[in-house]
Amino acid sequence: MEIICIGNELLIGKTLNTNAQWLAKRTTSLGIAVKRITVVSDDVDEIAQAIREALQRNPRFIITTGGLGPTFDDKTLEGIAKGLNRELKVDDRALKMVKEKYDSYAKAGKIGKTELTRHRIKMATLPDGAEPLSNPIGTAPGVLMQSNKTIIVALPGVPSEMEAIFEESVAPLLKKEAGDVMFFEASIYVDGIMESALAPLIDETMHDNPYIYIKSHPKGEEKKPHIEIHFSTTAKNSQTAKNRLGKAIIQLSELIQKSGGKVKQKK
Amino acid sequence: MEIICIGNELLIGKTLNTNAQWLAKRTTSLGIAVKRITVVSDDVDEIAQAIREALQRNPRFIITTGGLGPTFDDKTLEGIAKGLNRELKVDDRALKMVKEKYDSYAKAGKIGKTELTRHRIKMATLPDGAEPLSNPIGTAPGVLMQSNKTIIVALPGVPSEMEAIFEESVAPLLKKEAGDVMFFEASIYVDGIMESALAPLIDETMHDNPYIYIKSHPKGEEKKPHIEIHFSTTAKNSQTAKNRLGKAIIQLSELIQKSGGKVKQKK
Repeated sequence: MEIICIGNELLIGKTLNTNAQWLAKRTTSLGIAVKRITVVSDDVDEIAQAIREALQRNPRFIITTGGLGPTFDDKTLEGIAKGLNRELKVDDRALKMVKEKYDSYAKAGKIGKTELTRHRIKMATLPDGAEPLSNPIGTAPGVLMQSNKTIIVALPGVPSEMEAIFEESVAPLLKKEAGDVMFFEASIYVDGIMESALAPLIDETMHDNPYIYIKSHPKGEEKKPHIEIHFSTTAKNSQTAKNRLGKAIIQLSELIQKSGGKVKQKK
Repeated sequence: MEIICIGNELLIGKTLNTNAQWLAKRTTSLGIAVKRITVVSDDVDEIAQAIREALQRNPRFIITTGGLGPTFDDKTLEGIAKGLNRELKVDDRALKMVKEKYDSYAKAGKIGKTELTRHRIKMATLPDGAEPLSNPIGTAPGVLMQSNKTIIVALPGVPSEMEAIFEESVAPLLKKEAGDVMFFEASIYVDGIMESALAPLIDETMHDNPYIYIKSHPKGEEKKPHIEIHFSTTAKNSQTAKNRLGKAIIQLSELIQKSGGKVKQKK
């Protein structure tokens, strides 16, 4: 799985990319590993290039965020269409979704007349062969496409809309793909031992626990060390995962205590 | 300029990528535009591939974050060396930096014996032709390399260390490259007008103000709209930038008010 985030605001550092973190966490928890996250600007050619490059790496899924709205700089669908060499067409199902939203806003007295302006029709203009995904919160539909074996899903950049479409339309696809496999993790917190002294102890524990990935995250300074050690595994059931994680945590904790470090299970 | 962030913790959504935002904001403010941010795992081949792909796009700078420490999963330098087809060698200058750090920790009574273990020597093992950058806060030096016209800088993942090395060794290079050009920005906040109704007004303003980039960021829901409108430009002096930004802000504000929207300068 790859994630492509589209938006100048991410490249000028105006916006923190919480969408990438949310998607990465959520798909990992569903048992699908994220191999790469790419951020590009609101530029048709940049988006097209990022899509083409990602397709060459043959991921099962590509999820994009951002650039589905009504303004001139919402260029995601144009970029994806270019990357896939497909035409853009007004999609009747998507147009119905957009129209119903504006009609409902008008009915609620929130807006006046509800013309389907060029900018509103834009949100229903999809790459050929694409399927619109209902947006339970906002106006722009999500979009689902397939290119060879890769499923491409375009989600909006507004976090609440992105999350809602993901849960409704994307999570079921990922769960089906992952089958029974799930991701499990646990952390311990260590004081009084430097990361460089910890390194050989982690090596030894990982060698003895082949299904466990261990990574140290220094939280203090190297000279006043406070280190989080994160254990993770994927497994078909939680008992297997708990047993594996428990065994590795006990082994590494003992090694650290022998070296004079202090171990805490919680922060 | 491209940014490559290395770390499984980013791909499983455990860690929010604040380093990418900090670097993007800081380099943009220095007048250097970030074209792409890529996140890959702690895997030599993934890192090497990301470096090779970035080099093909010919950026003037590539900055990497993460993966410079002493543990087995700190693989950035090995990955960069592979991407550049260079050997890894223990660098005497880097080794001196690392040794002096551990000696100073020992002198301060913070650690015991200061052997240069395999894991510590690793932090001084650099791609051929690289230059170590002093780390004023932590142990692992930053690393500077050149490949054709691209300068590659590897920075640690610990934010305080990344920022310190950036300010000391990288910011001066970027300033020199940018010359007099700086980045300027301003925002207004708009209520009572939908993003889709705003779109043609932004189109018109951007058409009349060719040096200004305008992007709308919906903050509420489409049916109860609260929208930030962000104006940005690059210019050689702040007076030119202020004049340009002011002209565009006044024009768009008037258009919005005519359409029934309310404009605020501050949040």
